[in-house]
Amino acid sequence: MPETLADIGEFGLIDRIEALLQKEGGRPRELVIGMGDDCAAFRPRPGMDLLVTCDTMVEGRHYLSRHISALDLGRRAMTINISDIGAMGGTPVYALVSLGLQSNTPAEDVDALYMGFLDALRPFQAVIMGGNITRSGGADFIDITLIGEIPSGTWVRRSTARPGDVILVTGYPGEAAAGLQILLSDPSAPGLRDHPLVKAYITPSHRAIEGAAIARSGLATAMIDISDGLLGDLDHICDQSRVGARLHQKGLPLRPPLREAARQLQRDPIEFVLGSSDDYELIITCPPEKVEEIVSVVAASGPLPITAIGEITPPSEGEGVISMTSPDGLVRKLGRSGWNHFYQ
Amino acid sequence: MPETLADIGEFGLIDRIEALLQKEGGRPRELVIGMGDDCAAFRPRPGMDLLVTCDTMVEGRHYLSRHISALDLGRRAMTINISDIGAMGGTPVYALVSLGLQSNTPAEDVDALYMGFLDALRPFQAVIMGGNITRSGGADFIDITLIGEIPSGTWVRRSTARPGDVILVTGYPGEAAAGLQILLSDPSAPGLRDHPLVKAYITPSHRAIEGAAIARSGLATAMIDISDGLLGDLDHICDQSRVGARLHQKGLPLRPPLREAARQLQRDPIEFVLGSSDDYELIITCPPEKVEEIVSVVAASGPLPITAIGEITPPSEGEGVISMTSPDGLVRKLGRSGWNHFYQ
Repeated sequence: MPETLADIGEFGLIDRIEALLQKEGGRPRELVIGMGDDCAAFRPRPGMDLLVTCDTMVEGRHYLSRHISALDLGRRAMTINISDIGAMGGTPVYALVSLGLQSNTPAEDVDALYMGFLDALRPFQAVIMGGNITRSGGADFIDITLIGEIPSGTWVRRSTARPGDVILVTGYPGEAAAGLQILLSDPSAPGLRDHPLVKAYITPSHRAIEGAAIARSGLATAMIDISDGLLGDLDHICDQSRVGARLHQKGLPLRPPLREAARQLQRDPIEFVLGSSDDYELIITCPPEKVEEIVSVVAASGPLPITAIGEITPPSEGEGVISMTSPDGLVRKLGRSGWNHFYQ
Repeated sequence: MPETLADIGEFGLIDRIEALLQKEGGRPRELVIGMGDDCAAFRPRPGMDLLVTCDTMVEGRHYLSRHISALDLGRRAMTINISDIGAMGGTPVYALVSLGLQSNTPAEDVDALYMGFLDALRPFQAVIMGGNITRSGGADFIDITLIGEIPSGTWVRRSTARPGDVILVTGYPGEAAAGLQILLSDPSAPGLRDHPLVKAYITPSHRAIEGAAIARSGLATAMIDISDGLLGDLDHICDQSRVGARLHQKGLPLRPPLREAARQLQRDPIEFVLGSSDDYELIITCPPEKVEEIVSVVAASGPLPITAIGEITPPSEGEGVISMTSPDGLVRKLGRSGWNHFYQ
């Protein structure tokens, strides 16, 4: 029988996590006080603004523990937060982790969760500086607060897209959503975890390195990460920038595995590309004459594809109105289709 | 029927909270970006270190919604976090609030929760700069991350108490614990909410203003807030400072309402004073010759009593060993008796 949280108790668990962080957590930079006091403390670096984000994952709602290992879950939860820091152009520095766990949770699962958090933080030399653990009242949850830094005033917002800007997107949105459907449709299928779309769902990537490079370049007018789906997050840009958008269906990035999965699932692949997903790609807007430079900036960070999918339209064509040109030239309005935690 | 979260949806709820914060939330100081982007952003003030703490409350475990109004719950949840910032000598500046709520929660309860958060933050001109809302998987939860600031290097830690230091405590620890027992023993008793001990439980005070004054004075060697109980938190000081402690039973602050409640509950009042509680008072250690000055510093902040209850003993008498002199002169060792979320 593996040791559970009930066996080792709260303080035993905290000691265990502190030991793990000591061994695996890397060296803090401007961290003055880490875990083990009333608060963590750090000295901000001069010339830097701080970015703060938080995101909660609830078992059964944002993940299914029977379909994801504790290590992958830890990586994924931290990746989602890193993505938010990256979407403004920042670099993660300090994380706080609040866990709500049932007392029969094996202690080694908690170790694995933390190893996952650390895996995701390591490339940035970011550290876990604090947190909280409590017994959950049913469903487990992971709530992470992530603090990032960025040279003062260089963040890229959602609210500053301008009519005529080109809309760019990184990677292949929708693959994670299709991966989740594949996972749910036949969870016991052999080799499922090696399916590229299932992998896209279980081990998503953030684009924080690219986001930071884009912010440094000063070329983008607006940026957001896709956590509510391509359409849902483009809608956030349109709403807050008081503009509209026109997409070109032909231009949407769509690879054979997603086409094939959509066929098998009897769904339109475009639904996956536009709808709710868990891909954590970036939507970037910029003037047409800057597109090439942004593509180079992203290419310099790694082999991430970036695709022009449409353009920002003036408010005179409808604030918040998003339309799409189909391959046959027809233009139709698209309904907002994001992830709504209370409707669903 | 009041409107519920299911009626207004996630985005409806976020809009509602943003409107409430706009109206009631006060003006941010160095806040650059508030809610409504991928991250919040702020510019740290030069010469200040940042303190960060987080604390989670789970329904049924840390509070019982039938015994506390949403407004009081909001105040209480924020007070607990403010207490942690104050226990190192800092002042709260920015809060992030993560809520896990059931979809049948009335929207006005969420308003009241936020009004409670803001009530607690207002004296510090601190603001809510972000957060997250999700549907809970059973029990509701509130997870708050609070960021405070403090002049660089002036924080007071747990790990720096020295043999010979006097141990001081503010207020009357144990009253909240007795209040909870009264509430649980006869929840329908008339006038219960006006009972001073029940009030101590439902609407606890933090000592952040006193904590900041103590830190500024430079007189204290160690400080901690009581969230695990007087003994539990004194034990944290002893553990981390590698010292022991001797308490004097006669010196423990104990008021008639707690004596009376203990008699009715057939409990030893000292159990309440030393054991698990929710009082959020401060334990402070300082050299004997500084006691009078600390008492004056605290008195200058308001009418909060502060009591000398014992002294720090050298490691040669046992690291982490806490003993108590009873009124008849007997000395006995005390077991660590904190709040253990997984044992209980």
